Amino acid sequence: MLSEEMSTVSKPLVAITMGDPNGIGPEILAKALSGHALDPYCHPVIFGDKTVLEQAGEGRPGMPPLYEISGLDDVDPGSHAVPVFQAGCASPPLRPGSIDPETSHCAAVWIESAARLALAGRLQALVTCPVSKEGLLRSGCPHAGHTPMLQAITGVEQCHMSLFHERLRIVHITAHLSMRDAVAAVRKDRILHAIEAGYHTLRRLGFAAPRLAVSGLNPHAGENGAFGREEIEEIAPAAVLARSRGIDCAGPFAPDTVFNRMCGGEFDLVVAMYHDQGHIPFKLVAMDEGVHVTLGLPFIRTSPDHGTAYDIAGTGRARENSLVAAIALAAQWAGARIV
Amino acid sequence: MLSEEMSTVSKPLVAITMGDPNGIGPEILAKALSGHALDPYCHPVIFGDKTVLEQAGEGRPGMPPLYEISGLDDVDPGSHAVPVFQAGCASPPLRPGSIDPETSHCAAVWIESAARLALAGRLQALVTCPVSKEGLLRSGCPHAGHTPMLQAITGVEQCHMSLFHERLRIVHITAHLSMRDAVAAVRKDRILHAIEAGYHTLRRLGFAAPRLAVSGLNPHAGENGAFGREEIEEIAPAAVLARSRGIDCAGPFAPDTVFNRMCGGEFDLVVAMYHDQGHIPFKLVAMDEGVHVTLGLPFIRTSPDHGTAYDIAGTGRARENSLVAAIALAAQWAGARIV
Repeated sequence: MLSEEMSTVSKPLVAITMGDPNGIGPEILAKALSGHALDPYCHPVIFGDKTVLEQAGEGRPGMPPLYEISGLDDVDPGSHAVPVFQAGCASPPLRPGSIDPETSHCAAVWIESAARLALAGRLQALVTCPVSKEGLLRSGCPHAGHTPMLQAITGVEQCHMSLFHERLRIVHITAHLSMRDAVAAVRKDRILHAIEAGYHTLRRLGFAAPRLAVSGLNPHAGENGAFGREEIEEIAPAAVLARSRGIDCAGPFAPDTVFNRMCGGEFDLVVAMYHDQGHIPFKLVAMDEGVHVTLGLPFIRTSPDHGTAYDIAGTGRARENSLVAAIALAAQWAGARIV
Repeated sequence: MLSEEMSTVSKPLVAITMGDPNGIGPEILAKALSGHALDPYCHPVIFGDKTVLEQAGEGRPGMPPLYEISGLDDVDPGSHAVPVFQAGCASPPLRPGSIDPETSHCAAVWIESAARLALAGRLQALVTCPVSKEGLLRSGCPHAGHTPMLQAITGVEQCHMSLFHERLRIVHITAHLSMRDAVAAVRKDRILHAIEAGYHTLRRLGFAAPRLAVSGLNPHAGENGAFGREEIEEIAPAAVLARSRGIDCAGPFAPDTVFNRMCGGEFDLVVAMYHDQGHIPFKLVAMDEGVHVTLGLPFIRTSPDHGTAYDIAGTGRARENSLVAAIALAAQWAGARIV
């Protein structure tokens, strides 16, 4: 995915938030940094607690030294040590595997701090380790998760949860809605917004002429209105509009084969009509290896495709694959030179 | 899947309907019969046109001779030739790749004839090759497909489209409904019916203690009602009722991981809440190799997991894998001795 070419251009600054210190964030972060796979492609800046990360990396071969910064001006691009910005939230109480409002508060502060710097153009991408929705709410944060928090900070009304893994790229028009509400949200404007967000992302990732497809909503894409009219009234018109704007967007296609067709290389990206339509095939193909991408924000944001995993936090059993893939995609996107 | 043991018990009579002669039915039937893979396990009885099948098998190594019968009493269990029952519908006009009301009429007659004999207990299982829904309707048949026709013949109100392939066994509570209607059909009674149909099928297939699971409807199975209450009000109560009847039925689980868990061997069967929830993972794992099963009929009915494939009818390119798997499952089920 990453080519040598990247190392010859100036490396982007990529913020990585630690997430909830009581989850697996510190562990996967220490493992990712120790692996050094991404050193040639980006400068990571950690938003989190330096001591917690040092403890997570203790005794781990290859773990780089860390240094505390009080702002991005302190980052030393020539150093192999990794800068950590604590944003006033140091030494949260650590109880791996449990929800704690105080540590969740720190997690929220780190996200906000990184997001504001990304919004100001001081960072080229944001990668977030998992937080607890319940912990955020209990800490007094009004947002149950990263996406609503980032939307509030940036003022963006509509963004799209997306999943990337090798040949699979799936943009959802909605995410955490009941199926009843998700079906009602299958509307032309929203679909077109997702198509355009997907198109511009792939262009930025280096695809000269991205091949997009939209899935249908109903079985067999409704069979010409025999069961469901959303394909006729909302989805096909969105695809027509997209094509009139120069986007190669086919469909709507039957939901139960369009993802196979993407696996086979026929499309570069598919717009899914609801959460599970995209998540079911994605998790079958790319379980624990995929990357979450939020499209529609004014900056790049990726995250691993898993949660805080409280059940294994602190045990050393967490795998960093998905986080490494998330950082790699963010670096690729920020570098904008390679496919 | 099939064991030697089967050959020592009396072999079941399995009806195989030719489907639309203008589709790929005759070709896949000739290929399946020529392969002889299922000879030890069942006696096939073809419901279709003898000349059309002979033409499809012409020059094919291993193609068995065919003989016409005017009723099941004419079947010679000692013969290696294969009996064909034309049911008064011989020599339909043949135009591969096109919809023809006259050939579709023949297809309907063969299905009805086989179904009535199965209902009377004269046949142990029914395997159907694909028909054209549009062709059936244009031929004057009031039913757009096998399932409604079989329901009308048997008087069964509720049956469940199911998909089987190696470790994957998925029962759907609804099939060809719009998503809007499918969501409204997520009701306790219907779910319980599907659970029980799945349970009894696996018991008959030889599972001593089948492990069932129900999927949720909403993303993350609704997260305790945060987005959607069907899990709380309909799905969980159905699982509770099933358990009270002695069925090992877990869930509801998040739809985007329950199918992975079945692939990993954790469950023997999953009840899916709508068509694509089951079809998307199934077609990713078992494209062109899976078997359709109709649960709830008073006899066994399987079919290949594809349609008439008019685009390749008559070209010799159709693959018989799914039909062979459908016959094998029907024979296994009819023999009821092996897992």
